[in-house]
Amino acid sequence: MAVYTDVSEGELQAFLKGYDVGDLLSYKGIAEGSENSNYLLHTSGGPYILTLYEKRVDHRDLPFFLGLMDHLAHKGIVCPLPVHRRDGALTGSLAGRVAALITFLEGMWLRKPTAAHCREVGKALAALHLAGADFPLSRRNALQIAGWRKLWAGARDRADEVEQGLVAEIDREFAELEKAWPVDLPEGIIHGDLFPDNVFFLGDRLSGVIDFYFACNDFYAYDLATCMNAWCFEKDHSYNLTKSTALLAGYQSIRLLEPAEIAALPVLARGSALRFMLTRLYDWLTVADGALVQKRDPMEIVRRLRFHRAVRSAAEYGIEA
Amino acid sequence: MAVYTDVSEGELQAFLKGYDVGDLLSYKGIAEGSENSNYLLHTSGGPYILTLYEKRVDHRDLPFFLGLMDHLAHKGIVCPLPVHRRDGALTGSLAGRVAALITFLEGMWLRKPTAAHCREVGKALAALHLAGADFPLSRRNALQIAGWRKLWAGARDRADEVEQGLVAEIDREFAELEKAWPVDLPEGIIHGDLFPDNVFFLGDRLSGVIDFYFACNDFYAYDLATCMNAWCFEKDHSYNLTKSTALLAGYQSIRLLEPAEIAALPVLARGSALRFMLTRLYDWLTVADGALVQKRDPMEIVRRLRFHRAVRSAAEYGIEA
Repeated sequence: MAVYTDVSEGELQAFLKGYDVGDLLSYKGIAEGSENSNYLLHTSGGPYILTLYEKRVDHRDLPFFLGLMDHLAHKGIVCPLPVHRRDGALTGSLAGRVAALITFLEGMWLRKPTAAHCREVGKALAALHLAGADFPLSRRNALQIAGWRKLWAGARDRADEVEQGLVAEIDREFAELEKAWPVDLPEGIIHGDLFPDNVFFLGDRLSGVIDFYFACNDFYAYDLATCMNAWCFEKDHSYNLTKSTALLAGYQSIRLLEPAEIAALPVLARGSALRFMLTRLYDWLTVADGALVQKRDPMEIVRRLRFHRAVRSAAEYGIEA
Repeated sequence: MAVYTDVSEGELQAFLKGYDVGDLLSYKGIAEGSENSNYLLHTSGGPYILTLYEKRVDHRDLPFFLGLMDHLAHKGIVCPLPVHRRDGALTGSLAGRVAALITFLEGMWLRKPTAAHCREVGKALAALHLAGADFPLSRRNALQIAGWRKLWAGARDRADEVEQGLVAEIDREFAELEKAWPVDLPEGIIHGDLFPDNVFFLGDRLSGVIDFYFACNDFYAYDLATCMNAWCFEKDHSYNLTKSTALLAGYQSIRLLEPAEIAALPVLARGSALRFMLTRLYDWLTVADGALVQKRDPMEIVRRLRFHRAVRSAAEYGIEA
């Protein structure tokens, strides 16, 4: 939610000389993306997004992230297309940062998505999974259970400050998830962070999927479980079964889930909730008040975790194996 | 440098129904303007800036600010044009804030302006002064010496924390300025904050003057003295006489300064430096580290104040009466 690195007009002009995008008309730092600095550029060739990669992104992963967007866009997924430099490269250097230019997608992210939007998200996620199947690179998911353990180690000491009893509850959750976590589900490239602010709509039409900086290789059904957490809970913490049914049906209209994937949804949803709760908890405890990184209440996600813990089968999500 | 108020797509669509600007395609919160929340909109009718007025702006001043932009734009000044609603109004209500839609100006603000740019700024400032002469509304400058006194009262106790001896120095400065401040110079509408981030260029052509939220009635030469402070000092704190000469010559090519205005420039420049030093000092001492308001070192401006204090006549700025 911030612009960390300021860019001068002169250095931006020099950077753009490496591209075939016309003349620079304006650039504005935009308050989107929590990890990098982003600018919206207007050029005589059209609008673009300029991203400067800050310290939270490992630069060795950029060929994976940008290559994946390139691959998906060429397979018809509505995601930003990294612009190639005249020399063929996808990144350059700007203001002391590695930087990339990507196409700008019109559309708005929805603060209040409906079931119809959830269906479109399900379809887009399945299409993304299919389109990524022949992408030649791979990236380990650093935020699997072992990675969550590390986050938890950094936050556990003070977690009871957030809610009394949270330490015992999360310790128990880890023990159960490590026992119940599936080992043999269909896997491939997942988006990893398909929350509403990463999906654009124009009316009811899904016009863009953005922010591939958590993409990695993992279970497809885990990605779907993240969408359940991201799209189907209401502000009052209730789970909207209509949205969930639409999300899952949308997904299955493009890629049919195997019975084992469906059966695993409750445990995958618990794991996904735990993963997002832990990153929020870490920020909650370590980031100064009023800082540039927006802090969000980890307890909102603990409530989702508790919901999934009480689910006995995926039928409660509106899907039958 | 922040977006304080989030706007949902639904409420923005509803707000835009009051305007004749086509369909909404996208909107991004932009990291510009320290006082208000600003969004860059793309509509089928083109790009626009949406401003939500936050608490630092007195809403009773909006007819002055927006009416002035409207007046100046129609007189050929390259400034944003407030878009009239279908019912004729210049503001509406959005997300619990008073909000206005203004035209988007292409162009970049310059981190490293040259003397040629300073000349253009001088010309634009003089043209703005002339174009504002028949604007029917007026607004008292709240940041004249009496207003500075209030800022100083809120910061004086802790000013020596910033630099030992600052309290005595600024007390002395107030005493001298109150004695030497001119009483009878040509006056009218001034911009009040014409720093480089409020002026856009496309190449060497000045393409926009923005941010009229400090505009008020005061001495024209005071506005010019603010530009000297804003445009003519280098990063190493030296005063660039070439830029100053160009700024003043540019101004005079459009509006000739009276001998009394020229003679008053050193004291006006001291007053302007004091005014901007005090708002920085206030933020420096009161705003939490890492907060959304960007803090800038007040001592940078104290150095400018000291420079002007040593100036014996405006000839040292590159202008003769």
